[in-house]
Amino acid sequence: MTLAETGTEKQSIFKRRESKVRSYCRNFDTVFTRAQGSELTDEAGRTYIDFLAGCSSVNYGHNDPDMKEALIAHIAADGLSHGLDFHSDAKASFLTAFEQHILKPRGMDHKIMFTGPTGANAVEAALKLARKITGRSNVISFTNGFHGMTLGALAATGNGYHRAAGGSSLPDVTRMPYDGFFDNGFDSADFLQQMLEDSSGGIDAPAAILLETVQGEGGLNAASPEWVRRIADMARAHGALLIIDDIQAGCGRCGTFFSFEEMDVEPDIVTMAKSVSGFGLPMALVLVKPEHDVFGPAEHNGTFRGNTHAFVTARVAIEKFWSDDAFQRELADKALMLTTALADIAAMLPGAYVKGRGLMQGVDVGTGELASDICARAFQNGLIVETSGSEDQVVKILAPLTTPQDTFAKGLSILTEAARDAAHGLKQAAE
Amino acid sequence: MTLAETGTEKQSIFKRRESKVRSYCRNFDTVFTRAQGSELTDEAGRTYIDFLAGCSSVNYGHNDPDMKEALIAHIAADGLSHGLDFHSDAKASFLTAFEQHILKPRGMDHKIMFTGPTGANAVEAALKLARKITGRSNVISFTNGFHGMTLGALAATGNGYHRAAGGSSLPDVTRMPYDGFFDNGFDSADFLQQMLEDSSGGIDAPAAILLETVQGEGGLNAASPEWVRRIADMARAHGALLIIDDIQAGCGRCGTFFSFEEMDVEPDIVTMAKSVSGFGLPMALVLVKPEHDVFGPAEHNGTFRGNTHAFVTARVAIEKFWSDDAFQRELADKALMLTTALADIAAMLPGAYVKGRGLMQGVDVGTGELASDICARAFQNGLIVETSGSEDQVVKILAPLTTPQDTFAKGLSILTEAARDAAHGLKQAAE
Amino acid sequence: MTLAETGTEKQSIFKRRESKVRSYCRNFDTVFTRAQGSELTDEAGRTYIDFLAGCSSVNYGHNDPDMKEALIAHIAADGLSHGLDFHSDAKASFLTAFEQHILKPRGMDHKIMFTGPTGANAVEAALKLARKITGRSNVISFTNGFHGMTLGALAATGNGYHRAAGGSSLPDVTRMPYDGFFDNGFDSADFLQQMLEDSSGGIDAPAAILLETVQGEGGLNAASPEWVRRIADMARAHGALLIIDDIQAGCGRCGTFFSFEEMDVEPDIVTMAKSVSGFGLPMALVLVKPEHDVFGPAEHNGTFRGNTHAFVTARVAIEKFWSDDAFQRELADKALMLTTALADIAAMLPGAYVKGRGLMQGVDVGTGELASDICARAFQNGLIVETSGSEDQVVKILAPLTTPQDTFAKGLSILTEAARDAAHGLKQAAE
Amino acid sequence: MTLAETGTEKQSIFKRRESKVRSYCRNFDTVFTRAQGSELTDEAGRTYIDFLAGCSSVNYGHNDPDMKEALIAHIAADGLSHGLDFHSDAKASFLTAFEQHILKPRGMDHKIMFTGPTGANAVEAALKLARKITGRSNVISFTNGFHGMTLGALAATGNGYHRAAGGSSLPDVTRMPYDGFFDNGFDSADFLQQMLEDSSGGIDAPAAILLETVQGEGGLNAASPEWVRRIADMARAHGALLIIDDIQAGCGRCGTFFSFEEMDVEPDIVTMAKSVSGFGLPMALVLVKPEHDVFGPAEHNGTFRGNTHAFVTARVAIEKFWSDDAFQRELADKALMLTTALADIAAMLPGAYVKGRGLMQGVDVGTGELASDICARAFQNGLIVETSGSEDQVVKILAPLTTPQDTFAKGLSILTEAARDAAHGLKQAAE
Repeated sequence: MTLAETGTEKQSIFKRRESKVRSYCRNFDTVFTRAQGSELTDEAGRTYIDFLAGCSSVNYGHNDPDMKEALIAHIAADGLSHGLDFHSDAKASFLTAFEQHILKPRGMDHKIMFTGPTGANAVEAALKLARKITGRSNVISFTNGFHGMTLGALAATGNGYHRAAGGSSLPDVTRMPYDGFFDNGFDSADFLQQMLEDSSGGIDAPAAILLETVQGEGGLNAASPEWVRRIADMARAHGALLIIDDIQAGCGRCGTFFSFEEMDVEPDIVTMAKSVSGFGLPMALVLVKPEHDVFGPAEHNGTFRGNTHAFVTARVAIEKFWSDDAFQRELADKALMLTTALADIAAMLPGAYVKGRGLMQGVDVGTGELASDICARAFQNGLIVETSGSEDQVVKILAPLTTPQDTFAKGLSILTEAARDAAHGLKQAAE
Repeated sequence: MTLAETGTEKQSIFKRRESKVRSYCRNFDTVFTRAQGSELTDEAGRTYIDFLAGCSSVNYGHNDPDMKEALIAHIAADGLSHGLDFHSDAKASFLTAFEQHILKPRGMDHKIMFTGPTGANAVEAALKLARKITGRSNVISFTNGFHGMTLGALAATGNGYHRAAGGSSLPDVTRMPYDGFFDNGFDSADFLQQMLEDSSGGIDAPAAILLETVQGEGGLNAASPEWVRRIADMARAHGALLIIDDIQAGCGRCGTFFSFEEMDVEPDIVTMAKSVSGFGLPMALVLVKPEHDVFGPAEHNGTFRGNTHAFVTARVAIEKFWSDDAFQRELADKALMLTTALADIAAMLPGAYVKGRGLMQGVDVGTGELASDICARAFQNGLIVETSGSEDQVVKILAPLTTPQDTFAKGLSILTEAARDAAHGLKQAAE
Repeated sequence: MTLAETGTEKQSIFKRRESKVRSYCRNFDTVFTRAQGSELTDEAGRTYIDFLAGCSSVNYGHNDPDMKEALIAHIAADGLSHGLDFHSDAKASFLTAFEQHILKPRGMDHKIMFTGPTGANAVEAALKLARKITGRSNVISFTNGFHGMTLGALAATGNGYHRAAGGSSLPDVTRMPYDGFFDNGFDSADFLQQMLEDSSGGIDAPAAILLETVQGEGGLNAASPEWVRRIADMARAHGALLIIDDIQAGCGRCGTFFSFEEMDVEPDIVTMAKSVSGFGLPMALVLVKPEHDVFGPAEHNGTFRGNTHAFVTARVAIEKFWSDDAFQRELADKALMLTTALADIAAMLPGAYVKGRGLMQGVDVGTGELASDICARAFQNGLIVETSGSEDQVVKILAPLTTPQDTFAKGLSILTEAARDAAHGLKQAAE
Repeated sequence: MTLAETGTEKQSIFKRRESKVRSYCRNFDTVFTRAQGSELTDEAGRTYIDFLAGCSSVNYGHNDPDMKEALIAHIAADGLSHGLDFHSDAKASFLTAFEQHILKPRGMDHKIMFTGPTGANAVEAALKLARKITGRSNVISFTNGFHGMTLGALAATGNGYHRAAGGSSLPDVTRMPYDGFFDNGFDSADFLQQMLEDSSGGIDAPAAILLETVQGEGGLNAASPEWVRRIADMARAHGALLIIDDIQAGCGRCGTFFSFEEMDVEPDIVTMAKSVSGFGLPMALVLVKPEHDVFGPAEHNGTFRGNTHAFVTARVAIEKFWSDDAFQRELADKALMLTTALADIAAMLPGAYVKGRGLMQGVDVGTGELASDICARAFQNGLIVETSGSEDQVVKILAPLTTPQDTFAKGLSILTEAARDAAHGLKQAAE
């Protein structure tokens, strides 16, 4: 039996038994078996450069050797795999590292709440907490915001396809235009202010303002620091909590550990997930200012709150990458390299432009059709890269932050080639 | 530095940085370091028999050697840790094993949907799917039902402490009395039927009826097979889907893989989590009848849908425990042993009685105070056991299903002693 | 042009321009022109005895001569027709009469809130007030309860046809079984108590319990005084307000001014409409215990709150009928007469039985088909009478309370004849 | 006993028994007894010019002699006072007149639905209908919109004081900026379009767009015809119904019968109340395009739908004022006179400016304090005039449309004097 035959056989089980809701596997239609650093390998032995990184969930690359070693050691020694929210040595070590290398240096006195290990669960906990604290139910969220699929988080999410999926109303969220939404002269912060301040504006006093500093799923819209600062001030002025959803943009993705570090804001609540475990393991947490740490014991609970394996790898990730500023400097270099390469791609495509920030950039190519074509061509040439945005019109690069220079260059070169070919195809079709 | 001192130091990080929402660690106030089979060990080297099993998340015991070996091998070989919903060899193997050993022998043609790795996420997906299919928003759920903390799942949950946490309304659920709720002569299935059939009864046509066959958090209320069958018939008659939430009661907990196997019902949707990974790793799934598999690609999505490490251990669990009926027969024996021991305990306490089914039984001791006292005494003697129920009045035994006979006996003996002491304390206090 | 031709012509305008939502005119398909006492006259000069009384809106008969005289005098003298909520002499006189003859003799210190002139508006105001007072959103209402068509009131209404009309969810109401719902042994007050007291029962702490003592639209279900008393006690015990919706059952309909007078309960809030103007003019009010009179100025407002013409007639109604107990004694006699006649009718029809209380009684004839047949036959013989109940299975008698003995007897005789004929028709059809 | 003493006595009943929710009587603290044309008289015999007109409910003045005569004749002849939705001669005559003089000349084929006799009830019916037709729940309404106090209408209302009164969430409405909201360069129609067209904008597909062409309570914001036209186009393009709430702005208030007549739009639904009866009697209706007339019989019902007395006066009003264009021409003259006078007032007050349209104009004086001061001074000099707007900062003139030239001039002169005095007071306070 050849590998190809095995492939066919394995793939048949997916068709036979996996729900039609499956999606990424449709664009990247092969069976993956191994992953190392910035590369994935399929069962045919073919290797792919990974510019998706589990949607920013493996920011430190796949199977980082140090995390891997620590995790294997933990398992081999019968370390806890599941411990509810028991105290454990693994949790203590993670907390200690997170305090020492992340919170303290940034002057943050936040408490850490371990929620169910999904970003949506962290968002739900954050919204519930803000509503409990303020006694208000309304939450402000933004156009093209993406916060998860469970009912409370989905209400805050802009995506119409996902909103319609549930068949029930999605209450208690007011949608406001994000920075840069609508036309150029439009100041969406001023607009929000007037909506909040007009006592007949019809916007009920908010429990929270919830935002991503860069909207990952929403198409790599990056808010300006000034805009975020003004929203933060407005939240304070109106008795609302500022919740920054750093699930996709955090963990170094924007060039610093938190996406908002250089914005001079202090969010009341921060939600984290995706790369927080460092190893791609499910884990989520909510950072809460001590004065807002008012949930009673288990008031928001869940079986998998605190994933012990993830504590082990997360600790290593923090100690390895965030104990000094070397990694951060490396990110700055790579971000520049990325911007340059993407600018070249944008230049090939009429009307295209670069979006995003740090290692969370992409090219808006105008249509979802073209963006998909580019990604499909890239995949054929060994690069995994995805689209985002309301019309899937943005080719989004989410490479592992640790991607070696040459691999990064190679991936960008495949992408550039794919864009060139797609542009060529487009031109031919037009003629 | 002694172990005790280390303990003090480690515990200080929890106080300093972990949110006050932490809970189990309050009753079991030590720092755990290792776990093997049915025993946990703390940093002082003390060993505890585990009658909680991660709330039924480690039904096959901690660090099962076969799963452990497979998982270490997977990691060592750079198997995927995170793969979104890519096809992977690990997923294929899991699906194949699940089809062969679980679904096929039970005549189930359900499709498998991987949701975010929490039970709540599975419930949210199930509710959204039922609402999408039927175009209805109302869902029937039951008194003392427990389905999770995110807004959609929380709406279906009965617990008042948790319901109040969110500060927003919890719409689109109608609460009905569970089997055995209210007085003895009361037939809650007839009641539901009349509520649904009275066209001015004020109960909107339901998208789904959602139930647990044994209410784990709700106090080990076990529905009779006949009641479940009647609810299933009623769901069909009213165009509603039957969703069985088998998150806590499934995976062998009630003596068979699914809790409803011997009830002659075919649920349209089944939600699973907790022990489905076999190893305590976060994983959840939804089983859906093929005709109801109507979500479009990624219509309900999530970063951690499908946890690759969990696929590895889950496959081993299925092959090891469910490829023949040996394990199931073992469970029957243990369930009997449990019933007998609990009956003895109940006999010591005025008004106490045994509740539950299979290896999900407990004793209702009348008050949360007494139940907590018993659990606290047990913990002092090396047994981890918890309460459940609306007033925490039920001492709930959720030992790993694989607990060796002698360990099981020892745990039950500690519990019996604790109950005896508590009864004695009670009697003295009354005098 | 004959009268019949006129009829045709006039009826064509209804078909041409009136919305299909029109309803009563379908069963009573003629054009009415005059109304006096208990009789209506159509444009053909035909006279009908009115056993519907505008659904209990003209309890004192049509065009009562004293009210008519006072109203004409008021209009002729350019008395206010519309005065927002200005102080006016007409309002002062109404308030004085209501205080003196209604509230004081019954020991009620309630304040009077004039809402928009519909029952639904009064119910909305009552619910908003209860929610404001308690800070809770949930309201308990009952199977077969009917409280109006606007969103807040509709949420509390049981009727499925009306609930489905709006196409949006109807939140913040929990439905409980009314007295007598479900089987005979079932104690719905005990049931409600257990649902409220079980902390995981899933019933959020209620702002109010809202009930009719006799469910007019719901099929003349009459609650026992003991049941109402227990519900009242339960409301108090759970910090909820008791709201009695006396819109249809009040204003003498049950034999006393308020329907609950002989029940030894003191509702926190009472909603009134229908016959409160005495003359069929739109008017509604809410009685509120002084300690609950916490709405700020215009916090619930409306253009037509306080209908000045209605104040004029309402004052006359109160002074004429409620300044001593003569009218009430008359009602007792008529109620007895009604019960007797209805018992005879019930005896003709297999399985039929008398329902209701006071002058709000009827016969449950088992099916809506039979009830409609009886009403249609009655109409052919000059009697206007309607059905109620979830299946329209109850022939409901709502004659003006002032109907003269002989007219009442004549109407009952027409009804009896119609029932006999319908029974005969039924028997023939069965043969 | 003097009149003053009577006054005291009468006023005591209001304090003793009327709910604190009463409001207009606080600013206009006297007891009114008579009303004729544009004047109100109190019990002390003092006469006031009425520039409030029952918030536009007596557009044809108080006790119009022709309506009065017809109504007295109707009552004297025992015409129906209450007839549910029976066919009646009074209703037929009203419908005929409304068809002939209002609908036909304007080319409108709408059906007429009689709802409960409040504007809120008409709005609720309109929203329910739009949701039923489209199967969507979301409704777009605007900043500073005012649509009523019942839950469904309140959700669409912007006023924060009123929104907060209910203590429950107000679902299924999305708030958008009205024409002229936010800064000058801002195009709120373009903005709405982008929000609707961005598939991740987070605005669910709307059942309806609901708007007033002039926002009466919201501060006399008048939308431009072009804006209304664009909103109408957008509604059509997105499969939403256009509902124009003409409750305050209709019935001639803006210079034509409907406020939108000269805008070249055809609303799917129009809600009317206030002056539709012509005499200040409670009445409301909904105009519905025939293809949208899809409510089943009584699907939205109510005891007082169709107020027979109001049919009588409404018919006279239509025949008297709208059978030719004389009245409309008169209104144009008066509107001009009003604009001129208000411009003079605005010129006295720094920053003040004229707002509104037709006979629905006012002066934004900057603060609620100043506006209230002006109104209070006016009242002392015999003029009833009120404020509107989110901060009550607009002095709003809603004189009866029939106000004789000299009375109108006199009222405006009192107002001008009051503004001058207030401005003087303001200047003195500043010095």
